[in-house]
Amino acid sequence: MFVNISNKKVYELVIEQIQDKILNGELKKGDKLPSERELSEQMSVSRTSIREAIRVLETIGVVESKQGDGNFICTNIEKSLIEPLSMVFKLNEGTWQNVLELREVLELQTVKIAAIKATKEDCKELKTIIGAMGKENSMKKYNSKKIIQLDQRFHNKIASISKNYLIESVFITSSKLFERFIEDAREKIIENYRDEELLFENHRRIYEGISKNDPILAYEEMKRHMENIRESYIKTIG
Amino acid sequence: MFVNISNKKVYELVIEQIQDKILNGELKKGDKLPSERELSEQMSVSRTSIREAIRVLETIGVVESKQGDGNFICTNIEKSLIEPLSMVFKLNEGTWQNVLELREVLELQTVKIAAIKATKEDCKELKTIIGAMGKENSMKKYNSKKIIQLDQRFHNKIASISKNYLIESVFITSSKLFERFIEDAREKIIENYRDEELLFENHRRIYEGISKNDPILAYEEMKRHMENIRESYIKTIG
Repeated sequence: MFVNISNKKVYELVIEQIQDKILNGELKKGDKLPSERELSEQMSVSRTSIREAIRVLETIGVVESKQGDGNFICTNIEKSLIEPLSMVFKLNEGTWQNVLELREVLELQTVKIAAIKATKEDCKELKTIIGAMGKENSMKKYNSKKIIQLDQRFHNKIASISKNYLIESVFITSSKLFERFIEDAREKIIENYRDEELLFENHRRIYEGISKNDPILAYEEMKRHMENIRESYIKTIG
Repeated sequence: MFVNISNKKVYELVIEQIQDKILNGELKKGDKLPSERELSEQMSVSRTSIREAIRVLETIGVVESKQGDGNFICTNIEKSLIEPLSMVFKLNEGTWQNVLELREVLELQTVKIAAIKATKEDCKELKTIIGAMGKENSMKKYNSKKIIQLDQRFHNKIASISKNYLIESVFITSSKLFERFIEDAREKIIENYRDEELLFENHRRIYEGISKNDPILAYEEMKRHMENIRESYIKTIG
């Protein structure tokens, strides 16, 4: 049951009640919410207020509406961090250095955790990505789009090896921010990087550190990789 | 001017238009939005849709309503990450280890950046906090609440010395998560910590690293501090 409400800012109180039920574990991923009519009766508020609350929860990625089927507690809410963080970025007149720095903060520590926690299964997946990268790398016609895709898969996989949803969420948000605001320069960065034939070598060594469950090696190689990205970025931007 | 809309999910399109204007820099911090009536005319949508959109933007911390004065682009939107991240945490059945790990990720790299960027002014502020901590520490009657407050100020100050809003936002969000989900144990952690007379000493040395602009020292001391928190936490939880 939901508690009766008698106060102003009604839609916010509706949101609070639903959030509380998530925070105390009563509502879980994939759970269906009562219908809007039922919610409005249980809380003694108008259906408009319920609808407003649901819309807010939808936008911040906590609730998913399935047409004709009702409202569900969402499973992909890690996506919801990107919009607020993008705004933080723009409203504070963020620079590419800010984005790179955040990425460095996350990559450098996450790779250590990944090196400690990586299972054989995890390493096999990473190896597949590295293999594909190596193949692309040896091609005469260099396909930066494919390399970028593989690069993203590699880094996101490292985040997921951390087996920590919080870290993964923040990590993925920072990658998206990177894509969104550095995208234009990304292909050129990759090209510059390749001139020094370092890109593949860096990734291969990071993989080595993780697969040997050696956090220090993984960290050192990730650090080198981040320094190379930074240098390549500066070269590209001029 | 805002572009005319003719489509479904109207409130979402309204949000998009406002977001776009933030992302392309047309709307800045503190800017006043046109009135709801004006927005509804410019976009040819109902005032209800405008109101719904504004409410969503309010909730995610992008817009602030001042009574009788209208709607403004908000300055405190870094606050908006905490609710979605709390949900990510709960819906994925997060543990205290997850929270500690995220905090470690952020603290360890941020302190390096802070040690590089810290100005004399920054160090003076940190020194004041350390001074107050030292005073509390030497008291016969140990006041954990005060120590916790000073501890938070110290760590948040380090994040702000990074001079990177993105890092600061994520950092503060992670601290809040820590408070929200580890709060109960926090006083006990601090007590356990003190038994070993390490808490103050750790902070003093972190300060030393930052004030000497020595990122390696600052990092090593922060690492020790994080390890002590972890040990103390395990001791407390048993």
